Amino acid sequence: MAPPQAPIKVGVLGATGTVGQRFIELLATHPYFEIHALGASARSAGKKYVDATKWKLVSQIPESVKGMIVQECKPEPFAECGVVFSGLDHDVAGDIEVAFRAAGLNVFSNAKNYRRDPLVPLMVPLVNPDHISVVRHQQQELKLSKGYIVCNANCSTTAIVVPLKALEVAFGPLKTVMVTTLQAISGAGYPGVSSLDILGNVVPYIGGEEEKIEWETKKILGGVNPDNSFDLHASAPLKISANCNRVPVIDGHLACVSVEFSGKKPSVAEIEKAFTDFVTEPQTLGTPSAPKRAIVLHDAPDRPQPRLDCDLEKGACVSVGRVRECGVLDAKFVCLLDNVRLGAATSSVINAEVAAEKGYL
Amino acid sequence: MAPPQAPIKVGVLGATGTVGQRFIELLATHPYFEIHALGASARSAGKKYVDATKWKLVSQIPESVKGMIVQECKPEPFAECGVVFSGLDHDVAGDIEVAFRAAGLNVFSNAKNYRRDPLVPLMVPLVNPDHISVVRHQQQELKLSKGYIVCNANCSTTAIVVPLKALEVAFGPLKTVMVTTLQAISGAGYPGVSSLDILGNVVPYIGGEEEKIEWETKKILGGVNPDNSFDLHASAPLKISANCNRVPVIDGHLACVSVEFSGKKPSVAEIEKAFTDFVTEPQTLGTPSAPKRAIVLHDAPDRPQPRLDCDLEKGACVSVGRVRECGVLDAKFVCLLDNVRLGAATSSVINAEVAAEKGYL
Amino acid sequence: MAPPQAPIKVGVLGATGTVGQRFIELLATHPYFEIHALGASARSAGKKYVDATKWKLVSQIPESVKGMIVQECKPEPFAECGVVFSGLDHDVAGDIEVAFRAAGLNVFSNAKNYRRDPLVPLMVPLVNPDHISVVRHQQQELKLSKGYIVCNANCSTTAIVVPLKALEVAFGPLKTVMVTTLQAISGAGYPGVSSLDILGNVVPYIGGEEEKIEWETKKILGGVNPDNSFDLHASAPLKISANCNRVPVIDGHLACVSVEFSGKKPSVAEIEKAFTDFVTEPQTLGTPSAPKRAIVLHDAPDRPQPRLDCDLEKGACVSVGRVRECGVLDAKFVCLLDNVRLGAATSSVINAEVAAEKGYL
Amino acid sequence: MAPPQAPIKVGVLGATGTVGQRFIELLATHPYFEIHALGASARSAGKKYVDATKWKLVSQIPESVKGMIVQECKPEPFAECGVVFSGLDHDVAGDIEVAFRAAGLNVFSNAKNYRRDPLVPLMVPLVNPDHISVVRHQQQELKLSKGYIVCNANCSTTAIVVPLKALEVAFGPLKTVMVTTLQAISGAGYPGVSSLDILGNVVPYIGGEEEKIEWETKKILGGVNPDNSFDLHASAPLKISANCNRVPVIDGHLACVSVEFSGKKPSVAEIEKAFTDFVTEPQTLGTPSAPKRAIVLHDAPDRPQPRLDCDLEKGACVSVGRVRECGVLDAKFVCLLDNVRLGAATSSVINAEVAAEKGYL
Repeated sequence: MAPPQAPIKVGVLGATGTVGQRFIELLATHPYFEIHALGASARSAGKKYVDATKWKLVSQIPESVKGMIVQECKPEPFAECGVVFSGLDHDVAGDIEVAFRAAGLNVFSNAKNYRRDPLVPLMVPLVNPDHISVVRHQQQELKLSKGYIVCNANCSTTAIVVPLKALEVAFGPLKTVMVTTLQAISGAGYPGVSSLDILGNVVPYIGGEEEKIEWETKKILGGVNPDNSFDLHASAPLKISANCNRVPVIDGHLACVSVEFSGKKPSVAEIEKAFTDFVTEPQTLGTPSAPKRAIVLHDAPDRPQPRLDCDLEKGACVSVGRVRECGVLDAKFVCLLDNVRLGAATSSVINAEVAAEKGYL
Repeated sequence: MAPPQAPIKVGVLGATGTVGQRFIELLATHPYFEIHALGASARSAGKKYVDATKWKLVSQIPESVKGMIVQECKPEPFAECGVVFSGLDHDVAGDIEVAFRAAGLNVFSNAKNYRRDPLVPLMVPLVNPDHISVVRHQQQELKLSKGYIVCNANCSTTAIVVPLKALEVAFGPLKTVMVTTLQAISGAGYPGVSSLDILGNVVPYIGGEEEKIEWETKKILGGVNPDNSFDLHASAPLKISANCNRVPVIDGHLACVSVEFSGKKPSVAEIEKAFTDFVTEPQTLGTPSAPKRAIVLHDAPDRPQPRLDCDLEKGACVSVGRVRECGVLDAKFVCLLDNVRLGAATSSVINAEVAAEKGYL
Repeated sequence: MAPPQAPIKVGVLGATGTVGQRFIELLATHPYFEIHALGASARSAGKKYVDATKWKLVSQIPESVKGMIVQECKPEPFAECGVVFSGLDHDVAGDIEVAFRAAGLNVFSNAKNYRRDPLVPLMVPLVNPDHISVVRHQQQELKLSKGYIVCNANCSTTAIVVPLKALEVAFGPLKTVMVTTLQAISGAGYPGVSSLDILGNVVPYIGGEEEKIEWETKKILGGVNPDNSFDLHASAPLKISANCNRVPVIDGHLACVSVEFSGKKPSVAEIEKAFTDFVTEPQTLGTPSAPKRAIVLHDAPDRPQPRLDCDLEKGACVSVGRVRECGVLDAKFVCLLDNVRLGAATSSVINAEVAAEKGYL
Repeated sequence: MAPPQAPIKVGVLGATGTVGQRFIELLATHPYFEIHALGASARSAGKKYVDATKWKLVSQIPESVKGMIVQECKPEPFAECGVVFSGLDHDVAGDIEVAFRAAGLNVFSNAKNYRRDPLVPLMVPLVNPDHISVVRHQQQELKLSKGYIVCNANCSTTAIVVPLKALEVAFGPLKTVMVTTLQAISGAGYPGVSSLDILGNVVPYIGGEEEKIEWETKKILGGVNPDNSFDLHASAPLKISANCNRVPVIDGHLACVSVEFSGKKPSVAEIEKAFTDFVTEPQTLGTPSAPKRAIVLHDAPDRPQPRLDCDLEKGACVSVGRVRECGVLDAKFVCLLDNVRLGAATSSVINAEVAAEKGYL
């Protein structure tokens, strides 16, 4: 699809943090979007971006943003932005994001604050981009003529809903899902996890994470009613149980998943075909950050692995491997997500690309 | 219980390897046993132990074995041994262990070769020490007047059967078990896992391990018939599904376990009580290497952790934490085993202590 | 030597922190000392120790302190203490420690605040326990009838001054020292180093550390004048250059050291003998926490290693290995220190034991 | 400079190993070279490359080589190659490389076998590309009409000779160099270092490495006589002392270096300028794999770091930071090399590019 005639100006909130840095990395050379404003805390405001930021990515800080002056997170400097990406911490995201929406701005947020809000779409671009229509319901209920909030999902949820969606597309609603995650330290931000807690160790607990997976999965796999309100996974209530572990890995959430189908149990070969056949709307729309393959299926018995496979499709796909029968449920497999790209900033960016293509900007 | 009047002479096969080193560490100051002979490959035979061995433990090599001359793994130099512990690699253990049994020796083996043999007890000392009686059946079937083989279980199996047994003792047979393991590199021996494969990474595959857990658990939790032959978990066939992952941890296998009971679902508090109330036969017999607590229950939401909790009870217990309801099965919890102690050498040593106490040596 | 007739009451400041926990671990079963009072921040004061502390050691929290009520860091509750150990952070240690001294208490501090104070002895117990006499000069100058401050050295300094002292004892003053350290994360406290900074990485910088090594080494290796004031390493001014690196190791600072002697260059064998012959005053006094061997010399070409060798002598010695000629200076070697024991709390405790033996308590 | 009119056919020996994989990664899309033949052990010969190889790189295996049939390492299938790159292990490289040279082939080797050979140039492309002329001397002495061997240096040597050369270019011969390295595990190949040896640990020893640094540095920094024979660093004999450590880092050798100049001691600013001003012959020739910057100078006090900075200039530069005065020698700094790229395959490839440009192919 053709890019917009003129670049769309965008802003980044929380621009100096780890998610904000990922946004900037993705947006600096984006064919649709142009970075127009950067927001951060009062401590950083007024400084050049290069001076306000301890850049932590392997890629270099883009030249085009080095000299930009960081703003406070108030709507005015962002007034011309067609999209405002939020990489804010949840302790400040709540008030700032509603203030931006109230000012008529379109907020695409990686923060968790409004994920459970029944008016806010929880969009994983490779799963439920059709949920973008919920923003019309949001505006109607809140009596807004413009501006809305769209959230992307928690990173560990994203890792599993992509293959689960592929299975539902091929075989109908799932009945049961059991998942145990092995999650990377970058999922906790910076400074995040103390090295004394995780070096040579595993922590079998991530506060609130299991609940997020269990709750968000249902919202994402659910449908949208004709009036653009949500219709949660109600027809075949999905049972989910999650165990979350932190492991000493830099990037890449791995999950061991077992599933039970409502209908006839497919064979391993049929499941593998469902994964490789899976095509998503951003791909058919041809949005610039959509992966070529939404799911990459691995043959080797010991793959996917976080260190080796996160970089596939520039971190915008989910890797799946080890599809086999489960001794308890119907089938099991391993999946892997780049938690800092498709699990965070990349999802928000593709969500905005979808919104652009479908006329929501 | 009183120790034997004179120390029982014991041998160690595979004495220079990682499991062999653990045997020596445990036996060097043992109140029942006295190291009498050390066996290793032809390459090491004839050398002093200290010269034949690259000692890899944090503890120092015991003075008493430094000067012992390593033997080849043939029965003659072990003829006076009441127990022969085998830490042999599976590629040589098969022939050597039967040769030792044929010579009338009692072999307590950590190797996997005879674990599935229907005549060989697969003993986890905190779970099924009563299976020692199967050696009588073994001798009868093989027409041996003396000598037998006893195996201990795979380390990841051991991690879960201890809490599963505690639940079966309290609430009757289990119906379903789902387990995902996060296993330490020491489980693969030395040199074992290449650092390039595991540093900052997770490998979601350990060859044969899932099958071992699924198969061994049933044998261990099964009963013994009046004629001392096995009665596998037949009355209430247990369904098990296992996912095994290698993680960059030195020692300590962690497992996320979900269970379903055949009978009435107990509460979280009742399950926790079942764990803390669990007392095993080595404890009641008072054998010297038995832990004070077979299961240590942790309160903190983020425990047990391999690096912090493996050393509890000198590595001879299983740690359990995070007992809670499961959204799919009845309940779930996390458990942790010191894979190089209770998961390997310590189990064999307690098995031999039990045999001593019960008159099988 | 005989322990004191009645146990000496001691207090611990910063009792809930990582160094404080180490003090408590060492003191809970100490033959001379009895924990009498625990001090921490106002946030912890009034709580039971077990509730105020997130215990982070592999050993279990001692039963005897679990129920003790944590105090604020004011002198009154510590009035009966013969020794007050300080594990305080440097941002609060300054004022609190002088207040305790002013109240007539003897403070043995692990904090850095007064290490450069010309009136305060900087004591590494295996190097310069004779510097304890400087407290008389301190009291005289400050017109105190009782109470003083004794500091122990920075952990990385301690790692090198022990072998340097052994060399000076054997061969006279050193002329030049070059050192490059590889330091463990526990040296930075908790939460300390972010896992994102150090996992699979090396950070070639530790703020202020190189200056500490260069400055403290001279003070520690210097002498004491007849009036108990310091006489810095003046006769043969020592040239030192240090490079400090943080590495992903839990415990254990390793250092690569090259030295040049003022006098005749000794052979490698003579240097090795100087290390093994080195006997220190705490050892001759027989204080309870003194190591059996002050320096443990390793034969293997790839030792000492942090993970394997820190536990020697319960962490109270320095390991040395790889003594060989240097292509630039006279000789080079590798040394290793348990930074959380001899590098911190253990040094303070032995310093206090020395003070007890020599009549300074 | 213009690329050659037709691509030059090249071969890769040891193609299935870790260095061989790096060669293939670099050559698959190379503007001068075209992969024509792949050699490996007899075990792999006859198989498709994709089947013979356990690909270990984060990048995907290039499509163009997947179906190529692996050959035995004999000259015939390589007869049309203008360059043969050798990533062979040293235990087989010796015989094979001379056989290839005897067959008239130009071997660019990463193996260590002929590095000390007085007839073989030891070329670090950013340091001594002029040494290529030594191959004429080699051919003359061996009476070869065509074919020669060129070696690149050991990875840790390469890390330091690049900045040392920059200093010699600016300030004349160096007098003294002291270096302590912290080397990545990938430097030891695959499987290489056991994870049990290095996880959470440091090994202060790499067999032969210190000697390599001390010896190779002199050969590389030395000159070439008018008859194309070597003239070792003789006029101002360089004194070097090296300490080598293995650290748990995937890629990236870091070194702490102190230097003493023969002439006047330059200021820190002058040294920094010498690093940033350093331009090398491959850069002026414009060879395709030459870095834009040979040395990248870092401002931040805690850089360079292996995990963050190895990827600069696609791994073809050396990073330098922390330039400061040394308390013993004149100045000190930290440098970092991507040991698997500029430290291995990339050096060989640039060496061959230089040879192409200068008419040696």
